[in-house]
Amino acid sequence: MIIYVSNMSTKMPIQEGDLVLFLYRGKKEFKKVVKRVRKGEYFHTHVGTVSYDDIIGLEWGSLIRTSIGGEVLVLKPTLSDLMEQIPRRTQIIYPKDAAFMVIKAGVLPGSLVVEGGTGSGSLTLCLSSAVGESGLVVSYETNKDFLKLASRNLKRFGVKNVILKNKDIREIEEKEVDAIFLDIGNPWDVFEQAYRALKPGGALCSFVPSYEQMRRTVLSGRESGFGAAEVYEVLLREYEVDERRTRPKPWMIGHTGFIVLMRKVVDVNL
Amino acid sequence: MIIYVSNMSTKMPIQEGDLVLFLYRGKKEFKKVVKRVRKGEYFHTHVGTVSYDDIIGLEWGSLIRTSIGGEVLVLKPTLSDLMEQIPRRTQIIYPKDAAFMVIKAGVLPGSLVVEGGTGSGSLTLCLSSAVGESGLVVSYETNKDFLKLASRNLKRFGVKNVILKNKDIREIEEKEVDAIFLDIGNPWDVFEQAYRALKPGGALCSFVPSYEQMRRTVLSGRESGFGAAEVYEVLLREYEVDERRTRPKPWMIGHTGFIVLMRKVVDVNL
Amino acid sequence: MIIYVSNMSTKMPIQEGDLVLFLYRGKKEFKKVVKRVRKGEYFHTHVGTVSYDDIIGLEWGSLIRTSIGGEVLVLKPTLSDLMEQIPRRTQIIYPKDAAFMVIKAGVLPGSLVVEGGTGSGSLTLCLSSAVGESGLVVSYETNKDFLKLASRNLKRFGVKNVILKNKDIREIEEKEVDAIFLDIGNPWDVFEQAYRALKPGGALCSFVPSYEQMRRTVLSGRESGFGAAEVYEVLLREYEVDERRTRPKPWMIGHTGFIVLMRKVVDVNL
Amino acid sequence: MIIYVSNMSTKMPIQEGDLVLFLYRGKKEFKKVVKRVRKGEYFHTHVGTVSYDDIIGLEWGSLIRTSIGGEVLVLKPTLSDLMEQIPRRTQIIYPKDAAFMVIKAGVLPGSLVVEGGTGSGSLTLCLSSAVGESGLVVSYETNKDFLKLASRNLKRFGVKNVILKNKDIREIEEKEVDAIFLDIGNPWDVFEQAYRALKPGGALCSFVPSYEQMRRTVLSGRESGFGAAEVYEVLLREYEVDERRTRPKPWMIGHTGFIVLMRKVVDVNL
Repeated sequence: MIIYVSNMSTKMPIQEGDLVLFLYRGKKEFKKVVKRVRKGEYFHTHVGTVSYDDIIGLEWGSLIRTSIGGEVLVLKPTLSDLMEQIPRRTQIIYPKDAAFMVIKAGVLPGSLVVEGGTGSGSLTLCLSSAVGESGLVVSYETNKDFLKLASRNLKRFGVKNVILKNKDIREIEEKEVDAIFLDIGNPWDVFEQAYRALKPGGALCSFVPSYEQMRRTVLSGRESGFGAAEVYEVLLREYEVDERRTRPKPWMIGHTGFIVLMRKVVDVNL
Repeated sequence: MIIYVSNMSTKMPIQEGDLVLFLYRGKKEFKKVVKRVRKGEYFHTHVGTVSYDDIIGLEWGSLIRTSIGGEVLVLKPTLSDLMEQIPRRTQIIYPKDAAFMVIKAGVLPGSLVVEGGTGSGSLTLCLSSAVGESGLVVSYETNKDFLKLASRNLKRFGVKNVILKNKDIREIEEKEVDAIFLDIGNPWDVFEQAYRALKPGGALCSFVPSYEQMRRTVLSGRESGFGAAEVYEVLLREYEVDERRTRPKPWMIGHTGFIVLMRKVVDVNL
Repeated sequence: MIIYVSNMSTKMPIQEGDLVLFLYRGKKEFKKVVKRVRKGEYFHTHVGTVSYDDIIGLEWGSLIRTSIGGEVLVLKPTLSDLMEQIPRRTQIIYPKDAAFMVIKAGVLPGSLVVEGGTGSGSLTLCLSSAVGESGLVVSYETNKDFLKLASRNLKRFGVKNVILKNKDIREIEEKEVDAIFLDIGNPWDVFEQAYRALKPGGALCSFVPSYEQMRRTVLSGRESGFGAAEVYEVLLREYEVDERRTRPKPWMIGHTGFIVLMRKVVDVNL
Repeated sequence: MIIYVSNMSTKMPIQEGDLVLFLYRGKKEFKKVVKRVRKGEYFHTHVGTVSYDDIIGLEWGSLIRTSIGGEVLVLKPTLSDLMEQIPRRTQIIYPKDAAFMVIKAGVLPGSLVVEGGTGSGSLTLCLSSAVGESGLVVSYETNKDFLKLASRNLKRFGVKNVILKNKDIREIEEKEVDAIFLDIGNPWDVFEQAYRALKPGGALCSFVPSYEQMRRTVLSGRESGFGAAEVYEVLLREYEVDERRTRPKPWMIGHTGFIVLMRKVVDVNL
């Protein structure tokens, strides 16, 4: 009998320089904060102060007490935590949308993926994780400030399989691309170039907030040689469970955006 | 300037033995069917017949005509297509749920993941893709018929990083597991064993259809040493866009299940 | 102490000619059927046959047994039951939408309401109930077949405060109307006439299935002197509760239409 | 040809003492405020001040300018506006839920309706409107402060067909009641008394926030002689339409409560 044991880095205790997710009771909801732990520094919360010196060397998942007895849970941040907590200057793509886009577009470990509109890098982070070490993400962003922020964010998370380009996605240089993701206001302006860059059957996935953009994306896509169009919206409902009762949370995010999926079609005369 | 080119298998033309997604106009909706192409065989649809001999050698993404002029699009099935089309004897976990579970549980390329309740193997397939070649999925299933079907399904899709065990998940043997996924009726019966098998901070993700199970999962989890509980429901809305108009589809899936996420907590006295 | 007692007709036992709602267990779901009871006639179900002679004289709410022992519940149909069961040749407006439209448009007992597009009469029925005996509904329908059906439906339900007109709603003759409801494909074609017919501040409520119609309704409305535009969509989730478990129903109606509410604005120079 | 003209009070111009809905552009959203206009008084907004003396005598629906040129729309508040703006000390029932409850429970002009848990009186107001002048609402509330507030609210809106009782709904005195509405934490404690008070086939409608209450309501109801149970949740999506684009609002109310409908069943031996 073989017993398998994970060789992921999380089996190591917490080390200086690690990103850590602190979870503690806020006034209404639980609060989640991602911080990098540094010797001699502190994390201040309304339930008390945490010394990073106490954290370093602990196991992930430790429940600790602050200076004033408050409880803080110390976790390895997941991809979802990092995406939600990413320092941002733009609207980000949320995990609920990013995860669905990736699975629907057929992104796999090893894929070559191109992104138009890096923004703060939240979708980039998700794509980077999906293609793995053997894959590659190339992301285009014209705004230099966004690109600087995204670059810092990706470095912060130790990402190594992403190339950021300070160019318009219309200048896309990659070939035989497995999937292209567009998080820009006018995806239809890129369809001609995207068609050429994609491999036959490759996926074009656009994320747009308004109905007008969603409609134009589908109709323009058809004219540019894309087919198999599907349009989705992912709604996430969160629930509260405590000793007394179970119920959906009283507020929810009502809308982030529409996901438009298409595939590059090649007309064939048999 | 380096120009990156995908090295994924999809740049190869369609070959004998490949799984192919056929997409064609049905009576009301587009139809999607996954088939394995074999020389000398045919695929029959209400828009006409497709000879596999004509398919082999074509590029993915080809739009072909059937014997009677019907249009059929030939695509490389995505992970989502395979999950939705998986031969099944059980209720499956849909891509909308599986993708969100994976991103929330922090599964990455290289992770060691254990699944309780293989069923038809749809979530298994998604986990296999998420952990990649450097990771591993171990899946437990007591029902021999389900296991046989799942085994056939995974083989059919060429999956190599999954180990199926015909055992109860309570006999879980793995250690330092990154994440455990439970798709069984009584997840709380496994919490003690799951706690031991997980690494500190590791994720326990349960998928349950009813509110009673959801509640019990959260409350029992707390008693078993799990924390940071979150409960989600993913609702998917699909849209129709044609020349005339844009609107949400008149029917939708109203409920699949609740996703309960928890993390293994280790109490620490600093 | 005064004790109040209802003087509604339902305190009378079931009489020949009454509309009755039969409720009984179907193969998957409970079935609801509205029938008019006639002496000497029968209602046939898969749980057995009910003789109307047995029904007449019973109290509403009676649980009876069929010829073969099946259980059938005999209820006074509510407004909602009648709307859902209305004989139809058009898409109807469902109770979830109609009830919200009525409350948002400020319809009260005594109101004068005009409807454009009678269709099968389902919204008409709801409006009739809302304005009561002291109010009036005038409904326009160009299609004679629809009008005949609607007329039959309203007569069947004993409605007395509705006037049906076989005219285009653009020929609206009423003045100082409290609220106008439009269930037609091109509501903007009527806005000029609707504006004149409404009293200042009066409500214009349009029900449209597509986003293009919804958008055009709002933008054209503004140009025609309407203000305070609000756009809503009502989603209804149904739950299953039995001894074993509680959960949302696996299927739901994904879309019926958008509700656009506006008010007639009069520009004033103080 | 008879031309019908509304005889509702809204055809009168605005008079001293009327409740008025002021609608004006807020920082993010439109703001709606209900006020009673009094000679010599003012309404102050961030778009300027409105003198009630200027309002009195205007037509409903007037668009006026404030002292500093801001635009304010002056509307007759609808039932829905009044319910949403009701002064409150409790969680209120929203129009989306109240309207659906009323239509599903079969409340009509003339009905005798009993309410358990008056709260701030928002549902009471809706019931009062639905039963009209020929009907009656009797509402029970044990909390004297709530009752005082509800009484003030109903008086403020000129309601005349409601009787408030400072008693527990378990002491319900009415007979042959058409429908009973319960907005209390433990509706099952009242089922025995509600069954006796209802006419055969009468509707019992409970509004409860949690799953546990919803489930217990259904199961206890069955044991107490109620049948035809249906459980609903009404979700309301709001849309933004402006010159540039159309989209669902980014935030929405995620949960208010579950609506449980049942009917009084009388077992009959034919």
